[in-house]
Amino acid sequence: MNGFTFTSFLTSNIDIDKNVLDELIQKCKHVTIAKNNFLLRQGEICKSAFFVEQGLLRQFSIDEKGKEHILQFAPESWFVTDRESVYFNQPSNYFIQALEDSTLLQIDENFILSLAEQNKSFLAFNNKLLHNHIRYLQKRITQLLSATAEERYLDFIKIYPDILLRVPQAMVASYLGITPESLSRVRKELAGKNFKK
Amino acid sequence: MNGFTFTSFLTSNIDIDKNVLDELIQKCKHVTIAKNNFLLRQGEICKSAFFVEQGLLRQFSIDEKGKEHILQFAPESWFVTDRESVYFNQPSNYFIQALEDSTLLQIDENFILSLAEQNKSFLAFNNKLLHNHIRYLQKRITQLLSATAEERYLDFIKIYPDILLRVPQAMVASYLGITPESLSRVRKELAGKNFKK
Repeated sequence: MNGFTFTSFLTSNIDIDKNVLDELIQKCKHVTIAKNNFLLRQGEICKSAFFVEQGLLRQFSIDEKGKEHILQFAPESWFVTDRESVYFNQPSNYFIQALEDSTLLQIDENFILSLAEQNKSFLAFNNKLLHNHIRYLQKRITQLLSATAEERYLDFIKIYPDILLRVPQAMVASYLGITPESLSRVRKELAGKNFKK
Repeated sequence: MNGFTFTSFLTSNIDIDKNVLDELIQKCKHVTIAKNNFLLRQGEICKSAFFVEQGLLRQFSIDEKGKEHILQFAPESWFVTDRESVYFNQPSNYFIQALEDSTLLQIDENFILSLAEQNKSFLAFNNKLLHNHIRYLQKRITQLLSATAEERYLDFIKIYPDILLRVPQAMVASYLGITPESLSRVRKELAGKNFKK
């Protein structure tokens, strides 16, 4: 099973040569992490990307008043990393924590960059990942600037269709940038409209 | 003067071969745009990046209620583009509009990607731009989730030190995701604290 899901992910996303694929998979490390444990803490330099084969993680920051703010969740088939910290070799502003016992593939980010230098299909793949990331972040900014609590919640369900029952409500509210009370209100109103999920 | 600022920007950011630099500059088009005119409108597919040599632009969306939300400002030495639209060849969610008469270098994004395939220093440069972009977007999300109006305003002054007097207050408030009234209050409070800018 080692690397199986990641292999499927790669082969469905890029036209990759089997030798390059094998070289990459060999460089990856299969890691497991128990619920509540951390892959990264604020202040540490992030060195790896993690592909989630099984489980669920969150990336979040803690502000000066001790309040948590969730940047993203990472369920199965998502990547989680702090690209900023990896690339600029700077202490991270984020924590990455397992919300469930999880199985991950740990990928050396610098190896990915060097592979992209040597291999055109890999360069294309890395570009796609980076642009997907930019797309996700831009969408999130526009949403935080403009969407109502209900729109944010409906969007959350679209982006993360299967994690609503796996994540505490307070964390969903934190991700959405609304209070837990607003989230409860929205859920009640949607239930009243016979919204099924 | 054609391409001068952009050339300085490039040579100070990458170790670029003169021939590659000349090839790139030849592919760029020098364009001017009058105040209030648009480089891109919501629904159009974005094909280019623009490097601002002189002037000021904004990238914004308009929500269903007709309200504007500013994603970024682009003063001198900034790039402005919708990478998502360019890369995925999809209609843009954004407008790009000149707030002042501006002089720009128009860069074919697909040419940049093909140059990155052929030239390692250019690949490194493009990676740096993409990661800088991700850094900027992540910071903005964390700020929108967690910062007070005052913190947002102080951060704005750091990111855009010289545009405060060039942009209407309502647009600054829109960028910060706060009401114009909150912005006025923050400015008065900071003036009361003898904050100089």
